[in-house]
Amino acid sequence: MGNYNILMTTKRIETLVDGVFAIAMTLLVLSLNVPQLTYPTTDFAIINSFFAMFHQFFIYFMSFILLALFWRINHTQFYFIKKVNQTLLWINIIWLSLIALIPFSTNLVGCYGYLKVPIIFFDLNLFFIGVLFSLNWYYANKKNLLDKNANKKMVKSRNKTGLALPSLALVAIALTFISPEWSSLVYFTLFFIKG
Amino acid sequence: MGNYNILMTTKRIETLVDGVFAIAMTLLVLSLNVPQLTYPTTDFAIINSFFAMFHQFFIYFMSFILLALFWRINHTQFYFIKKVNQTLLWINIIWLSLIALIPFSTNLVGCYGYLKVPIIFFDLNLFFIGVLFSLNWYYANKKNLLDKNANKKMVKSRNKTGLALPSLALVAIALTFISPEWSSLVYFTLFFIKG
Amino acid sequence: MGNYNILMTTKRIETLVDGVFAIAMTLLVLSLNVPQLTYPTTDFAIINSFFAMFHQFFIYFMSFILLALFWRINHTQFYFIKKVNQTLLWINIIWLSLIALIPFSTNLVGCYGYLKVPIIFFDLNLFFIGVLFSLNWYYANKKNLLDKNANKKMVKSRNKTGLALPSLALVAIALTFISPEWSSLVYFTLFFIKG
Amino acid sequence: MGNYNILMTTKRIETLVDGVFAIAMTLLVLSLNVPQLTYPTTDFAIINSFFAMFHQFFIYFMSFILLALFWRINHTQFYFIKKVNQTLLWINIIWLSLIALIPFSTNLVGCYGYLKVPIIFFDLNLFFIGVLFSLNWYYANKKNLLDKNANKKMVKSRNKTGLALPSLALVAIALTFISPEWSSLVYFTLFFIKG
Repeated sequence: MGNYNILMTTKRIETLVDGVFAIAMTLLVLSLNVPQLTYPTTDFAIINSFFAMFHQFFIYFMSFILLALFWRINHTQFYFIKKVNQTLLWINIIWLSLIALIPFSTNLVGCYGYLKVPIIFFDLNLFFIGVLFSLNWYYANKKNLLDKNANKKMVKSRNKTGLALPSLALVAIALTFISPEWSSLVYFTLFFIKG
Repeated sequence: MGNYNILMTTKRIETLVDGVFAIAMTLLVLSLNVPQLTYPTTDFAIINSFFAMFHQFFIYFMSFILLALFWRINHTQFYFIKKVNQTLLWINIIWLSLIALIPFSTNLVGCYGYLKVPIIFFDLNLFFIGVLFSLNWYYANKKNLLDKNANKKMVKSRNKTGLALPSLALVAIALTFISPEWSSLVYFTLFFIKG
Repeated sequence: MGNYNILMTTKRIETLVDGVFAIAMTLLVLSLNVPQLTYPTTDFAIINSFFAMFHQFFIYFMSFILLALFWRINHTQFYFIKKVNQTLLWINIIWLSLIALIPFSTNLVGCYGYLKVPIIFFDLNLFFIGVLFSLNWYYANKKNLLDKNANKKMVKSRNKTGLALPSLALVAIALTFISPEWSSLVYFTLFFIKG
Repeated sequence: MGNYNILMTTKRIETLVDGVFAIAMTLLVLSLNVPQLTYPTTDFAIINSFFAMFHQFFIYFMSFILLALFWRINHTQFYFIKKVNQTLLWINIIWLSLIALIPFSTNLVGCYGYLKVPIIFFDLNLFFIGVLFSLNWYYANKKNLLDKNANKKMVKSRNKTGLALPSLALVAIALTFISPEWSSLVYFTLFFIKG
């Protein structure tokens, strides 16, 4: 029913992607719960709640920046991808469903940051996002959906760096057993990987 | 007041449609409730809550993918629809109000997946979405709002496949009386219908 | 600071308007609360909650359709408005803040539909939206921001029809004293006013 | 990984910015909580809750208008910024994460408007938004990312006015010690600063 066989232009997908990202990034704020204190309360009690929320603020900013990074990588990929077929469309849809899941994972980590399982859930979420990034690029290259001016060396180099996110997610899972709360800091090394 | 008699270009509607879809898809995540466990809790308790949420995760991904499919069908339709009159506009608005209802239906099924009525509500939601899809296409064809290059054979073939979603929704309702929780799996046959 | 004196193109505002509308329309769904029943519950209990929610569903669809109508009127206005100055920008921003308030008003009416004050609040919300519609058009015409091809007769005729929404809101307020729950039906006459 | 070294066109960022703003502005409405009164309640009780919510309504409209102002300033900046490099991209992303935080700050002030700390949190949020505005402009100018037609006098003048928001935020913090609830009124002077 949706299988009508035309190659979509990439523009449509990019609009949907931009929309989902803008919303997912803004929904992250809902993981910050205004402290519920009984009336009347004091400035001191509020400051105390803020300290208790410190990890939540950290997770909010980290997730926001990770989402921005993924949005950036997606744009770089679609700078070279010129055509979209059914399979590539659905790779991107499933990838988007994992992006839209990030506010849930973030919220989970915000509530139970002192446990291992919620952090591992968050890490697995990022792991599969990374896998689908690689799949997207690998498939687009294999099916000749890339711009002809994208030279082979660059494509190969991106193939390699595409493994960075899944690998880091696995490292983060390992680090969970040492320090669950700060294991996610490992993702910031993404900024230093040239691609 | 809104009836000023100009044919709108389809671009405007597509922007609104893309926006509503991006938001509805991202709002689905709100149907996944972070388990509320009293502090301090254990990893074991979290894993247990995840198992209890298994059906909710299934429904989340299924609704996400169905919405993406509807978005795709809408784009294929508007690939051929070149002009929009008042009636077509309102067919699409009512259709959109049913799309925006999906997060509610999904949430309902997520909470009461073991009952029949919530699933039937979800199925009816999809049934009417399907009916409005068909109506949109049928009306656009009847009023000559389609691209002139859309050949008759294709239009007829799409008329037929347009009945797939409403029919499947009725099948899903019937299956509800056998297994409410998994009756929705029938919608995945949509991917195998050529159109 | 924001007063840098360039005429904005209307495109920017239209993007923001489209975004706010898509979100406000989709957020309406949050006014539909999944009934909270203790586990395990029955299909019969769910059906009963649906009957109790009947007015909420009515309000959901009505607000959705009213927002779509306002979006349509805004587009018709900006079909003729070709330039935007500071004042027109802020008229539209304040108008948007009232549009974004609709999910709150809708929610309020959904919760307390049997009372007068919430309905009057909802009606006043629409009243001021209508007033700002008229102000937008009146100001754009006065300051020569309209397209030169917009003929005078059409502008005057729209000036008159622009009073339809505020007038209807006042009628709806009066009807509140007879039947609060259904007084809003009066807004559907908007569809029969030529403009 | 995201560091692929191409200059992005500004269009992409603007789309994301527009999306985040539209959503943040519309999410503000969630800071207005429908009063929870036990059934059946009276019109009189609703009116009383409205009076108690007066400060919340004030904060809603003020935050909405401030966000619109920031959106406007961002557009004016990007009217002159013609190219975006990695650093400028991340300045804007961090700035966006502070914009997306506004619904939280607003909600906080709405709940605890009678205390100092929540207001200071809100003021600091605006302070850093202002600092990043200035940084954005200063950096774009330093790295020659501005349009060549932007004359030096204008750039310098904007450098100065860019300090208005951070300064006002500091004034607002000082005023908090006199009247926490109304100290934010000082931000309205932003409308009278020529830039």
